[in-house]
Amino acid sequence: MNTHTTSKTPITLLGLGDMGTALARAWLAAGHPLTVWNRTPGRTRPPADEGARVAATPAEAVASATGPVVLCLLDDASVGEVLDGVDLNGKDVVNLTTNTPSQARERARWAADRGARFLDGGIMAIPPMIGRPETGGYVFYSGDRELFEDHRAVLEAPAGATFVGEEPGHAALHDVALLSAMTGMFAGITHAFALVGPEKDLDRIRFATLLADWLGAMAGAAHGMAAQLVSGDYTEGVTSNLAMMTAANDTLLATAEEQATDPRLIAPYMELMRRRVAQGHGDEGLAGTVGLLGGA
Amino acid sequence: MNTHTTSKTPITLLGLGDMGTALARAWLAAGHPLTVWNRTPGRTRPPADEGARVAATPAEAVASATGPVVLCLLDDASVGEVLDGVDLNGKDVVNLTTNTPSQARERARWAADRGARFLDGGIMAIPPMIGRPETGGYVFYSGDRELFEDHRAVLEAPAGATFVGEEPGHAALHDVALLSAMTGMFAGITHAFALVGPEKDLDRIRFATLLADWLGAMAGAAHGMAAQLVSGDYTEGVTSNLAMMTAANDTLLATAEEQATDPRLIAPYMELMRRRVAQGHGDEGLAGTVGLLGGA
Repeated sequence: MNTHTTSKTPITLLGLGDMGTALARAWLAAGHPLTVWNRTPGRTRPPADEGARVAATPAEAVASATGPVVLCLLDDASVGEVLDGVDLNGKDVVNLTTNTPSQARERARWAADRGARFLDGGIMAIPPMIGRPETGGYVFYSGDRELFEDHRAVLEAPAGATFVGEEPGHAALHDVALLSAMTGMFAGITHAFALVGPEKDLDRIRFATLLADWLGAMAGAAHGMAAQLVSGDYTEGVTSNLAMMTAANDTLLATAEEQATDPRLIAPYMELMRRRVAQGHGDEGLAGTVGLLGGA
Repeated sequence: MNTHTTSKTPITLLGLGDMGTALARAWLAAGHPLTVWNRTPGRTRPPADEGARVAATPAEAVASATGPVVLCLLDDASVGEVLDGVDLNGKDVVNLTTNTPSQARERARWAADRGARFLDGGIMAIPPMIGRPETGGYVFYSGDRELFEDHRAVLEAPAGATFVGEEPGHAALHDVALLSAMTGMFAGITHAFALVGPEKDLDRIRFATLLADWLGAMAGAAHGMAAQLVSGDYTEGVTSNLAMMTAANDTLLATAEEQATDPRLIAPYMELMRRRVAQGHGDEGLAGTVGLLGGA
């Protein structure tokens, strides 16, 4: 049971999937008056039990909104469908629906055409992490900076909030870029566990601690890469260059073969390093490989 | 200039490449009497200037050794060549030459056949990090536990020392496994920077900080994977399972296409997740993918 105070910004939330439900709980716990709508009415029961008002339609929910209208729907197409014909003029739309940068940019234009302020968000968290401030700081927002500042307290309540720019696609881009980098790291960890797989007497718990500490320390390499990409000098401050790393890769591949581990998760990056070295750039750091993937 | 004290263990070091030279400097700075040998005599000059004794041959260096004989040579074959015919009986051999686990195991047998105690080491550092205790803890040793304990102070001086087991291949395996995981992480970071490549107004320095912090936090996933691999229950404690991650991968790949970024560095792991889900194990965590790489 929740005690509303009139000093808290009212929130309208469309979409009560696992993430929407977690957000509703966090905002109710923080004392915000909350109006919810969900396509499947059954899912409105838990927030209603905790004090949320349930709207019958998206149009009704939005019409009564005096604070941010938060969208946490299945996908970008659902946003268009759910708000088709709904009057958004003068509203503050905060879109937390998972999307790509270009979908976010398109959605920003769509909102502007309807007279709404627009902020797009990317949540780097799974529902169990919502409402726990200690996991915070990994919800990215981009778009209307004033909207972000006006509702900062609302946006920070569930899991922190970081504004990453006025270009509306940049929150989604940050979200995807960090998840993509994590995918690479998880691939590397998976390879590492496969390597030790045949060793029955190797302490895997202790190994995991050494591995996690090592990766945590080495993640800082991103700073050096950023500095190089900004300066355009990919040899700046390099201590371990691509030629040295490529030479060391032979031992990594030989060990994978000894331990009967398929190298497919790490071999593509080794090949990229080798290609850059073959182009005559063995003295560069990792930043030298970025351009080989395209981008600009 | 260095003042030797008789209380410090004397060290014999064969091999003065960049790493050997850094080790020599660290041990001399720590006050250890040091005897060095190198195939190319010119490289003995810097340690000699700091007080090291220079041996004319490996045999002479080893014969006079009363403390550990440290090998830091080009490769495993060099170890066999340099010590061919040299009497190792009763000596303590510490092999820091880069090698694979099976080379380390073979070298341990070779040393035992010659009456020597044997310890194999893997240095997770580049020469500029040697002698700076704040970078320490990433030199792994495996093999003769008594040898490690007898010479712990010597081994810890350059960059810390961690004993990872009596199986002589395990130091090299830890070294390779951590470097392999790092390769995966660097691949992910490279992909992330390629994704933001086209965005001229995106602050790369701030992006790098968010990225490094995120990866540092997510590296802890290795603990959960280890616990699952030990228990054999890959669904234990899973909050984000393979089915959920596979669904999210579509957004990651769509964004890569939007940003003109070749997905070759992260796609292989996505394919591995998809394959495990197709096997009916979508409820598992990342540990479920390890077996698909082989190992045992």
